[in-house]
Order: sequence, then structure tokens, then C-alpha cells
Amino acid sequence: MSTVKKLSAQRRRISLLLLENKALVEDILNRQPRVTDKENKQLLDQTAEICQLIAELHAADLADLLESLPYDERLALWRLIPIEKRGRVLIEVSDSISDDLIKDMKDKEILRAVRILDVDEQAQLSRRLPRSLLGRILTTLEARQRAQLREAINYDEDCIGYLMDFKLITIRADVTLAAVQRYLRYRKTIPDSTDKLFVTDRKNTLIGELSLAAILLHPPKTPVATVMETHPLMFQPEERLEEAAGAFERYNLISTAVVDSKGKLMGRLTVEDIMDVVNKESDSHLRRSGGLTPSEDVYAPVYKAVRNRWAWLAINLCTALVASRVIGLFEDTLAHLVALATLMPIVAGIGGNTGNQTITMIVRALALHQLEHGKKSYLLLKELGVALVNGVIWGSIMGLVTYALYGSMAMGGVMMLAILLNLLLAALMGVLIPLSMVALGRDPAVGSSVMITAITDTGGFFIFLGLATLCLLP
Amino acid sequence: MSTVKKLSAQRRRISLLLLENKALVEDILNRQPRVTDKENKQLLDQTAEICQLIAELHAADLADLLESLPYDERLALWRLIPIEKRGRVLIEVSDSISDDLIKDMKDKEILRAVRILDVDEQAQLSRRLPRSLLGRILTTLEARQRAQLREAINYDEDCIGYLMDFKLITIRADVTLAAVQRYLRYRKTIPDSTDKLFVTDRKNTLIGELSLAAILLHPPKTPVATVMETHPLMFQPEERLEEAAGAFERYNLISTAVVDSKGKLMGRLTVEDIMDVVNKESDSHLRRSGGLTPSEDVYAPVYKAVRNRWAWLAINLCTALVASRVIGLFEDTLAHLVALATLMPIVAGIGGNTGNQTITMIVRALALHQLEHGKKSYLLLKELGVALVNGVIWGSIMGLVTYALYGSMAMGGVMMLAILLNLLLAALMGVLIPLSMVALGRDPAVGSSVMITAITDTGGFFIFLGLATLCLLP
Repeated sequence: MSTVKKLSAQRRRISLLLLENKALVEDILNRQPRVTDKENKQLLDQTAEICQLIAELHAADLADLLESLPYDERLALWRLIPIEKRGRVLIEVSDSISDDLIKDMKDKEILRAVRILDVDEQAQLSRRLPRSLLGRILTTLEARQRAQLREAINYDEDCIGYLMDFKLITIRADVTLAAVQRYLRYRKTIPDSTDKLFVTDRKNTLIGELSLAAILLHPPKTPVATVMETHPLMFQPEERLEEAAGAFERYNLISTAVVDSKGKLMGRLTVEDIMDVVNKESDSHLRRSGGLTPSEDVYAPVYKAVRNRWAWLAINLCTALVASRVIGLFEDTLAHLVALATLMPIVAGIGGNTGNQTITMIVRALALHQLEHGKKSYLLLKELGVALVNGVIWGSIMGLVTYALYGSMAMGGVMMLAILLNLLLAALMGVLIPLSMVALGRDPAVGSSVMITAITDTGGFFIFLGLATLCLLP
Repeated sequence: MSTVKKLSAQRRRISLLLLENKALVEDILNRQPRVTDKENKQLLDQTAEICQLIAELHAADLADLLESLPYDERLALWRLIPIEKRGRVLIEVSDSISDDLIKDMKDKEILRAVRILDVDEQAQLSRRLPRSLLGRILTTLEARQRAQLREAINYDEDCIGYLMDFKLITIRADVTLAAVQRYLRYRKTIPDSTDKLFVTDRKNTLIGELSLAAILLHPPKTPVATVMETHPLMFQPEERLEEAAGAFERYNLISTAVVDSKGKLMGRLTVEDIMDVVNKESDSHLRRSGGLTPSEDVYAPVYKAVRNRWAWLAINLCTALVASRVIGLFEDTLAHLVALATLMPIVAGIGGNTGNQTITMIVRALALHQLEHGKKSYLLLKELGVALVNGVIWGSIMGLVTYALYGSMAMGGVMMLAILLNLLLAALMGVLIPLSMVALGRDPAVGSSVMITAITDTGGFFIFLGLATLCLLP
């Protein structure tokens, strides 16, 4: 059995124990045995088994497990995880869950859990801790770490500084590889995700990078200066994590230096941080595209879910109300020709669909920086061309269907023209909305889809019923 | 200026040269100067500048650049990239573009471009090449590589075997670290993304892993066996890449061994491959959520875009037609009470919105394996609970709005009840659709959203107009 499978089996075993035994969960949560002796013995055994499995699992496994359990079971498992292990678990769980878990801990426990973390991890966690605790954490640190933590918590969540890692090895350029290797043996450990050492001068300015491979491949007497990479790729802490992620993917990096504006080495960024960034981004896109906020998990209690979703529903209702009022303008037309009421959702629907295809294409191209130097007018013409072709094809088909259903050539013609015009409107707005949002400095992925649907609904009703009023009424 | 910024400036310069000079593009595409001498000199200079910049850029940069250029400019740039560099660029560009680029090359050129790639890269590319070429590529390889390529092309795109990398270093357990280091110096290179060497026995069975750090940290006389990791994490080529990506993220891996069912070492998987997998997945999700196929790029010509999008539009029109027929059932009711036509899109719209929220939540939880041991009935009850609360709140508000608009208590009541019932329907189907798709072995992310919208539209119209027929007609 591969290690991955074994770990997954262990996770499954814990879930099973907790999910199939309500008494066990209650027992853990109440911290007092309320059952008969024989049952009690069994519960204690099961608790011990869970504790044993917890000891064998990585923090990331425990985080996954916590996310996959309903509320009570989650809390029961959390209470069984030793304080020393909780800090790393908190780093790994998503924001929606860590709040609940932190709330379940006493201040003292939080301090103990946070103390053993690295500075960059403490910085990440400190945003989710009660404000008062941060001060107490700072006082427990030694001066250098305190300065690093103060520095790290000042950066925005999408800045490189936020995830900057301070565990790195620096060496001088004038020593030999043998000396470097002696120094490493003296240090006894090399931080995770280290593929290179950073070469600095006396003022801590980064002057090169020495890969572990270079140390192994060259004769021990070689000076560092002759085999180091003298033009290393480096970032500044204010740069955006998204850009760093692009560079890591493009140039297959494991770690890079982070330097200040004067070129002094501040820390490093590793591929593990980047993986987290990429995952978080794709998760947040997934949630946004479905109208969810980042703070709801699948087992969130009903009241939380309602609170999280209400804003989207409210917006949806408002736009629907506007569309409804547009239909209201044409009540007389509808009274003359009820068939229009059956056809109007088709015009609106196909417009929304096309508009969203265009928006998706543009938002994606913007995210991949494909439009930076591109021809925006070309893009608009292309989308209008696609809408024209689709409008003629599908408009004609629906026109014929309408004729077949209601036997009126005029109504078929109105249907066709309305679909064509609404598709053109959808293409136009599908290009303009995301581009204007970028021009206004906003994220085009948020809200574009709601706006286009609102416009194609309202526009579709207006175009269709307006045309019908002009052409079909006596 | 950081290296990343310099590279990005170089990319921008190439775009600018191509986009602002139609004559240059035509000149390159026609491969014959059609301009006067003085202009010609300038074009040649610019071509030379682009060639110089191409030489300085990574393959991944060139791939990005190709994706960001319109059709003609893209082809012009492609023709300037030396054949030897094209293989790697083809690996990096997305499928939609690589087809066009390959079509522009002669068979001989393709063979030359492919020859210098690693076996795993050849395997990835070979799927996009004309069938006849694959045989010719196989004949150019030496026996061992031929066997590896034959092996690699047999795996599905979502299997670990598909991205398995054959560049790795194996050592024996009974040698000393000094011997390992001597061997590395003799080999002269260490493959990219190597954080560990693989320890095998004479039958090529994987028995351990030796990290580069371990070689550096322990005294040279230490035997490999005493410092190697004896329970390494390993995968089999048939396992899914998605699971490997989870493990890489969870355990912060740089590389892992891939072994066959008997534990024999076949290859390795590296974090760079995993980054590509993660990026491709999030891109394909983005496209799917907007109803786009993976083969359309933002500069695709109109006919291609129409072809790519027609299927979604056809499905949308079919479901809209069904919804329209449901409204048609109630034409008599609508004729009596035209106001209903203005209100019915609201009921359908809010149902679709809620349903998509639920679907997003469930699809996300399924992707993160959060429901494997979870309580599905709990989930259904939770979503129904959320729908009940939202239905009562928003239903009442819309009921009051309806009363305010039309002065009819009965109509307000029908509105409220219809919204409540449609939200409950949306929640029920929002849970059942993705779970049933998983039970049927299909990907719940594809099509769920279309299905839920179709159901809440049709259901919303039916519920609202049905209730109105029962309660409001004389």
C-alpha cells in the first residue's frame, strides 16, 4: 500500500469513528463520561485510537479531515488534537473554518500553538487572531523575530511580503564549496524547499545564488564566486503574489529571493507557498462564479449559509425586478398577444448565455495578460461577428419554430430580429463590461456575470416586446 | 530592474514591433520583400531585433507571447522562432494554439523540433501530431527511449503516467555519500527539480530516497542505507494526476517516485508538472463555467468561435423552448391576468440563482473530497433549511412588492408561495444533480449548472402559473 493510500485510510478511519458514534462525539465535547461503565471503556478505547491516528497524520491531513466533517464531529476532533500540533493545522484549514476553531481555544492555548510556528506562518495566522493576542505574541518573541513578524503583518494578503519565508541560508562569495559544506554540516539542518543558498555581501546585499546541485557537482576547492548564479531572479515584497506565481510556473522555480528596494536580502518565496496561492485563487474563482462568499463551508450551519448568500439573492431580485418592470411597460401589448409571454424568456435566456460566454473569454484573457498589448477593437469586432453569425442562424431557427407554433410570419420575424439584436447587445456588453471594470481598477471576475445577465434580460424583454409592439399590434 | 520585469519588457517589445507594423508581419509571412529598399532595410532591422529577443526569452515566455497575439502576428512570430526552440514552445502553449502552429510546420521541421525534447515531453506532444509522424519519431529514437515513449503515450491525460518524467538519478544503498558525490561529479549534471536521488536494488526495486540535503549534511563516509528515507511516498502510473496534485500540495513535495505494481522504479513526478496540472484544471473549470470549450482562444477567428460555442447555445435554446412550452400551457391564465407575465421571470430567476449557489458548494466539496465520508442527508437538510429561510424572507418581500404594485393580496400570496417552492426545488435538485452525476461516474462540474437552470426555469414557471391558475382565476 502506498503511503498516500495509507494516510487516506487513516483519515477515513477517524471519520468513521466520529460519524458513526454520536455518543463518542458527545463524550469528547462534554469532557465528562455520561455513559455506563462498559460503554465508557469502549469510548475511551476509541478516543485513544483517534489520538494515535492523529499523531501519525500530517497537519495538512488533519486540516482536510476537519473540513470534511460536520460541525460537532469537527469540534470533537479538534479537541483531541494536541495544542502543539494545532498551530500548523490552523495554517492549513480554510478561513471559514479556522475562525470557529480559534474561537474554541483559550488565549493561553492559542499562544502555545502559535509559538512553535515559523514567523511567516505566525504572520498569516495573526490576521485571524483577536487583536489583543497579537501584542502578547510579539512580546514572547526574540527581537529579530519580532521585527520580522512586525514587517510581515504589514503586507496585504496578495503581496509577496505576506507569504515571505525567513528560513533561508546565506553564505559569502569568497569561501570554497568545501567550506560551504562544512558550514551546512555545522548547521545540521537545511530548511524545507531549499534548492539554493543565497550569496550576500557584508551589507546583506544579494549578489548571487548557489544551487545545492552546484555544490555537489563541482570540486570542493571551487570558490563560491566562480559557480554561483550572478543574475538570479528576485522579487520585492510589495510585488503581487499572482505575478510571482506566473514566474514560478513559467521558469519552473523551487525558491526565489525576496529583496528590498536596495537589493538587500529580506527572505525567500518557495514553491509550496505558490501552490497554496494558486489553489486559493482557483477556489475563490469557483466560489465567486457560483455566487458564494469565501467564508462558507459545506457543513456551515443554516444561519451562516443564509447570511453568506443573502447579498447575491438581493442583487438578483433587484435586477429581476427591473426586468419585470420593463415587461410591465408592455402589458397592453401582452394583453393583445399572450403568445409573446411564452416566447420572451427565450430571447432573454439566449442573450444571457452568449453574454456569459464572451465575458468568460475576456476575463480569462485578462487574467492571463493576453490583452495587454492586444487590439481591443479587433476583439470587439470578433465578438460582434460571432454574435451576428449565431444571431442569424439561431434567430432563423427560432423564427421558424415560432412560425410553426403560432402560424404568424410577422411573429417569426420579430422573434428572429429580437434574438439577433439581443446577441449583438450581449457581445457588445460582454466586451465592454470587463474592460471598463479593469479601466476603473476593479476585478473583472467579480460581478461581470451578474451585470451581463441583468442587461441581456432587461434588454431582451425590451427589444422583443418593443419590436412586437411596433410590428404586431394593429 | 528585476529579471522578471526585464523579460516582460522584452515580451512587450516584440508585441509592439509586430502589432504596430502590418508591413513587417506581411513581410515575414510572405518570406519575400515586397517593399522599397529603404523600408526594406528597416524591416530587416526589426526582424533581426525580434530574432535577438527570441533568443533571450524562455520557451514559456514565447508561448505566452504567442497566446497574446492575434492570428497573423502569432504566425509571423512563430516563423521567426528557430526550429530547435519550437519543441519546448509547443509544450507550453495551450492546445487550441498548438494545433495551428503545428499545421504551419513541415513534417521534417516537426521531427527536428521534437527530437531534442525529453521523452515525457515527446509523449505529451505526440497526441497533437499527425498519426503518421509518431511512427517516424519512434524510429529516430534509441531502443530505451523508444520503449519509454511507447509506455508513456499509453496513459490517459489525467493519469500520472502521462506526465511521468524519466530524467532521474538512481544510486545503490551500500555505497557511501562520498561515492554518491563522486558519481554526481562524474555525471556532470543533475536534472531540474531534483531534490532527491532514488535508491534501488539490483532488480530496480525502489528501496529508499536520498535527499540532496542529506548528502550535504552527513559526513562523507556515511553509507547511503543509514541516512536514506526508507518509506518514501510513491505513486503508480495509473493513479490520477489530481490525487498526486493533492499530495504534492499537502506534503510540500518537490518530486516523487513513480513505481509499477511490483515496486520497480519507472520514473518520477515533479512539482513543475503538478503546477501545470493545477493551472490547466483551474483554466478548464473557468471555461466550462462560462460554456466555452477548451479549444477556443481569445483571438480565434469568428468561424472557429461560432463552431466552438454552438453546442451550448443549442442546449440553451432547447431548455428555453421547454420552459416556453410550459408557459404556453397557461396561456388562458395569462390572457386573464397579464400581470403574471411580468412577475414570472422573477420566480424563475431567483430559483436559478439559489440552485447555482447550492451546486457550486456541492461541486466544490466533491472536488475537495469533503463528502466522501460525510452525511449526505445532513447536507440535503441543510440546503433545504437555507432555502426555507430564504424563501420565507425573500418570498415575503416580493409578495409585499407584488401587493404594492398590483393591489392584490391573493397575487402577493401566490408570488410568495411560488418563490418559496421554487427555492426548495432548487435546493433539492442542487444537491441531487451533482451527487447523482457522481454516482453515474460523470464529472459533476460539467452540465450541472445548465441542468439546474433548466429545472428552476421550467419549475418556476409551472409553479407560479399553476398556483395562479388555482388561486386567482374566477
